[in-house]
Amino acid sequence: MISHNAMAGLLEDLPPMRVAERLGRLRDHLDEAGVGVLLVTTSSNVRYLTGFTGSAGTLWVDGVRAVLVTDGRYKDQAPDQVEAVGADVEVIVSGRENSSPLRLLSAEVDEIGLEADSIAWAEQRRLADLLEVKVLATEGLVEGLREVKDEGEVARIAAAAVVADGALASVGPTFEVGAVEGEVAAALDHAMRLGGASDRAFETIVASGPNSALPHARPGQRSLEDGDLVVCDFGAVFDGYRSDMTRSMRVGGTGAGLEAEMLAAVLEAQAAGLAIVADGVAVAEVDAACRAVLAEAGLASAFTHGTGHGVGLDVHERPGLSSAATGSLRTGQVVTVEPGVYVAGLGGVRWEDTVLVTDDGHRLLTGSPKEL
Amino acid sequence: MISHNAMAGLLEDLPPMRVAERLGRLRDHLDEAGVGVLLVTTSSNVRYLTGFTGSAGTLWVDGVRAVLVTDGRYKDQAPDQVEAVGADVEVIVSGRENSSPLRLLSAEVDEIGLEADSIAWAEQRRLADLLEVKVLATEGLVEGLREVKDEGEVARIAAAAVVADGALASVGPTFEVGAVEGEVAAALDHAMRLGGASDRAFETIVASGPNSALPHARPGQRSLEDGDLVVCDFGAVFDGYRSDMTRSMRVGGTGAGLEAEMLAAVLEAQAAGLAIVADGVAVAEVDAACRAVLAEAGLASAFTHGTGHGVGLDVHERPGLSSAATGSLRTGQVVTVEPGVYVAGLGGVRWEDTVLVTDDGHRLLTGSPKEL
Repeated sequence: MISHNAMAGLLEDLPPMRVAERLGRLRDHLDEAGVGVLLVTTSSNVRYLTGFTGSAGTLWVDGVRAVLVTDGRYKDQAPDQVEAVGADVEVIVSGRENSSPLRLLSAEVDEIGLEADSIAWAEQRRLADLLEVKVLATEGLVEGLREVKDEGEVARIAAAAVVADGALASVGPTFEVGAVEGEVAAALDHAMRLGGASDRAFETIVASGPNSALPHARPGQRSLEDGDLVVCDFGAVFDGYRSDMTRSMRVGGTGAGLEAEMLAAVLEAQAAGLAIVADGVAVAEVDAACRAVLAEAGLASAFTHGTGHGVGLDVHERPGLSSAATGSLRTGQVVTVEPGVYVAGLGGVRWEDTVLVTDDGHRLLTGSPKEL
Repeated sequence: MISHNAMAGLLEDLPPMRVAERLGRLRDHLDEAGVGVLLVTTSSNVRYLTGFTGSAGTLWVDGVRAVLVTDGRYKDQAPDQVEAVGADVEVIVSGRENSSPLRLLSAEVDEIGLEADSIAWAEQRRLADLLEVKVLATEGLVEGLREVKDEGEVARIAAAAVVADGALASVGPTFEVGAVEGEVAAALDHAMRLGGASDRAFETIVASGPNSALPHARPGQRSLEDGDLVVCDFGAVFDGYRSDMTRSMRVGGTGAGLEAEMLAAVLEAQAAGLAIVADGVAVAEVDAACRAVLAEAGLASAFTHGTGHGVGLDVHERPGLSSAATGSLRTGQVVTVEPGVYVAGLGGVRWEDTVLVTDDGHRLLTGSPKEL
């Protein structure tokens, strides 16, 4: 397994991320949206724009200034991280309330955009009172920028995927009769940490037998039994970026029953979806390509969720890939393709990879084998 | 170490939680607050009131009805869990939007309370539009109920603490020169999972040398060096309930320098705080008791955070124990007492236990030794 120190070395070798240019791109967005000032409160958005990774930071962005307000815990870390990425951001360390710097900044403006999808209603009310300005509900201004990844971001997602692949390779042999779901999940999580991940990307799913029919099952006390379907959905975090992958199997071998048909049909569906991923392809088409294969296999109604989602600093980002989604894939997006079928009482199957969208196709970032 | 299966057995032996009576207590609170209907959207509050542990659930509570609206993923789990705890809650499975059931419920009311501290501003706006009612910002209505734990809750926090104690006992010997912070943290997390925890209670802190001077350091690539102060702050989750504990040490032995003084003074401060914990004692007094010892030791200004907080379904709950906090401790509350001192460049020390407040004192739930 890759050691912690080897991964630290890898980090130095990865291409840098182009953080410094992001504020300019955001300002273009703000102009288009008619928002003079945006107060960025979503921590992954603050990180994206400034390089700052602390838990407490509010970023003021107007046409000329960007000011990161944080607290005393981050008085050294925040300026260091901002400087390291070359972002044109002033850092102000405030008291616990973070109130005065924002009051000063807002003294000369009439309205401020807030990130309505994540800011708590109580916080919105508190800021409106405190700053005595009109607050505007904005949606996805920074998230829109984050859809297309730069080379440094792709390299980090790929590194996270390598760690997850390594973890599965080391833990895979334990997927056998008698293994407890919760213990297999714990082993995967531990292997990712030892492999250099700072964390798992989300709560690892190891779901067996009837549990595998629940797309969001939590690993529990159940022991794997011969003939069980097992769904294993997990990812790693590397330098803040995440991977996401699902592998499925049947304990004791694929066999020849309905389980075998499900395993094969979903794998074929995933291949059909992956085959058409490319710049300019409508996201709904990728979903439709997966669904067509499953319909052919008589499993259309067993595919109960969307086909995929973007991955980056968050495990679920834009774009969503579903039948109802609009828009087209763009080069530089990193998305999952993950059809699945679920039969209550029996079990489920899902195959998922994280891929980079390219001009004429895709590059697979998750590399674990998909065997029947 | 306790095996998964042994912990599953323990769960059956634990005293049950009195979930069914909580809705009645909430209704008393709603009457006092003049709120006719509360829409509970905070997942830990939904769990507290209904026993439902899924990720998607909105609970309507009025004077006579309680209705849990969830989605198809939880169509079996939600009614099963509600029935298991005997809660008088109807379950409605809705489509992805969960809209129609709430519209029907709200057709005959004029205003609805929302949990302003956690609901996103965008969601508040969406509900106000959808339901065509006045929405009221409420604060802490359910959280207030959650402050005093019942016997079943205390037993679960205690079980989480036992798991964390076991993890530290098994991993403790690795706290030596050359150990990497991130690897020690990973080992603790893994040991908790193997010990029966469903998860860690929060991101485990293993901070060494100068890193230990940061109260919220993240474990990194640093290797422990002789003479380092090391702060280890972690907890486990058991059946949804959390523990929280911090132990500190100096690599190579306590010695006789400033590090030794810090270790001893904070331990004495914690003992002073714990000594006065009891029903009826002002929370600010517990904080003051810790602070007085550190002032005596010339370390007053190095104690840069509050003294403690409640622990339960969330790792940070009410009450807060700080100099500015009002109110008094009550029998049945579970709180931390965790003074700490931090010297930039050198390191920090924190001692923390989770304790149950009793009529005449406290019961220690975290049991790892505190040695100098």
